[in-house]
Amino acid sequence: MNLPERTIERLSEYRRSLLNWLSTGKSYIFSHELAGLHNITPVQVRRDIMLIGYSSVKKKGYDAKELIALIGRIIDSEKGLNIAVLGMGNLGKAVTAYFNGKRSKMQIVATFDNDLNKIGRVIADVNCYHINDLAKIVTEKNISIGIITTPPQTATRMGDRLVEAGIKGIMNFTTSPLNVDDSVYLEEYDMITSLEKVAYFVKKHSGQDK
Amino acid sequence: MNLPERTIERLSEYRRSLLNWLSTGKSYIFSHELAGLHNITPVQVRRDIMLIGYSSVKKKGYDAKELIALIGRIIDSEKGLNIAVLGMGNLGKAVTAYFNGKRSKMQIVATFDNDLNKIGRVIADVNCYHINDLAKIVTEKNISIGIITTPPQTATRMGDRLVEAGIKGIMNFTTSPLNVDDSVYLEEYDMITSLEKVAYFVKKHSGQDK
Repeated sequence: MNLPERTIERLSEYRRSLLNWLSTGKSYIFSHELAGLHNITPVQVRRDIMLIGYSSVKKKGYDAKELIALIGRIIDSEKGLNIAVLGMGNLGKAVTAYFNGKRSKMQIVATFDNDLNKIGRVIADVNCYHINDLAKIVTEKNISIGIITTPPQTATRMGDRLVEAGIKGIMNFTTSPLNVDDSVYLEEYDMITSLEKVAYFVKKHSGQDK
Repeated sequence: MNLPERTIERLSEYRRSLLNWLSTGKSYIFSHELAGLHNITPVQVRRDIMLIGYSSVKKKGYDAKELIALIGRIIDSEKGLNIAVLGMGNLGKAVTAYFNGKRSKMQIVATFDNDLNKIGRVIADVNCYHINDLAKIVTEKNISIGIITTPPQTATRMGDRLVEAGIKGIMNFTTSPLNVDDSVYLEEYDMITSLEKVAYFVKKHSGQDK
C-alpha cells in the first residue's frame, strides 16, 4: 500500500481523536463527526479511510476501536522504533521529555551531545552519549530514526553522521535544510519560519484594519 | 501585495541563508546558488523573487544585502511584534528560550501558566503570569501573537481566550486542532504526527529491503 504523506498525517491525527472519542465512552463515529474534529470535509475523511480499505457500519459510522487498530497496523512497527536525539540544548531536552511517554510504539532511547558536562548524564530520563559514539550506539540500540536539534551550523554534519550510522529516517528541527540520500526519509520543521509566516499575516491584517 | 503562504516561508528561509552568505564575505548570489542551499529549483527561486518585484544584476546575481532588506520590509513589522507563550512546561520553556534572541523584530514578552509555582517567576528570561491575567497583559504589552504549548485538553479554551484578548495570530503546538475565527491567522504544528509519518516511511522502507 502506497499512501500519500498527507494521508499518513491525517491517519495519525484521526487515531488521536479516536482514542479521545473512546475515552468519552462512545464507540462509533460518523465521518462528519471525525471531520468536525479536524476542521476538514467528511468527503476527505471517507476518502482517507477508503484508501486503507475500511468502511463504516450503516447508520452507526466507523467502529472506533477497529479503526484505531487498523491505523496502528499501518503506521506502527510491531517491535517499536527506537529514536536518537542529537543536541541536548533546550529544544533537544524539550523534544525528548515531550515525546517519551506519548507514544508506546516509538521511543527516544539515546541522546547525544559534545558537551562533556552532559555526557554520561541522564537528561529527560534518557542517557546522553558523546556524539563520537553515535554509530556504535545506533547499532547497539537498534536505532532507526534520528532527530536533529543541534545549532544550524552543525546540522549538515549531523545528517551525514546519521546516514553513515545507518539511520533510515531523519527529523530536522534546525533552521538549516538538509540534503540526504533518497533512501533516507527526511522531515524538516523550522519554527522560526512558521512564526515569521504568522507575523507576516498579522502585519498584513493590521495594515488592512487601519 | 498578496503573497502565498509557501512563498512567505521560502522568503523567510532565503533571508536566513542570505545572512549566512554575507557572513562568509560574499555579497552577490545567483539564483542557482540560493536554490542549491534550499534543495529547490532555480526557477522557483526566481519566481519567488520576481513576485516581490526584485531582480538580479546581470552576471553578478542578486545583491544579498538589498534582498535581505526587501524581505525584511515584507515580513517584519516596523515596531516589532510581541508574542505570548501559553503553557510553561518543557515545550513552552524550550520555545521561549530557543526563540528569543534569534529574531530582533519579534520577541516573546510574556508567558502564562496556571501553576502557582511558576507564576511571578522569570522562566527562560521572561516573566510568567497567571493565565487569568491574559487579557490584561496582552493589552498592556501590546501582544499580537500567541503560542499554545499547553496540554491538548486545554488547547481549545486557550485559543478562545487568545481570540477574546484580541490576538491576531496563533501558533498551536498541541496535538489538538483549533477552530478559530477567520480574522485570526492560525498555524499548527504537531510533532507527534510528523514523527509518525517518519516512522511509517521507515517501516515501509525496511519492509521493502527484506
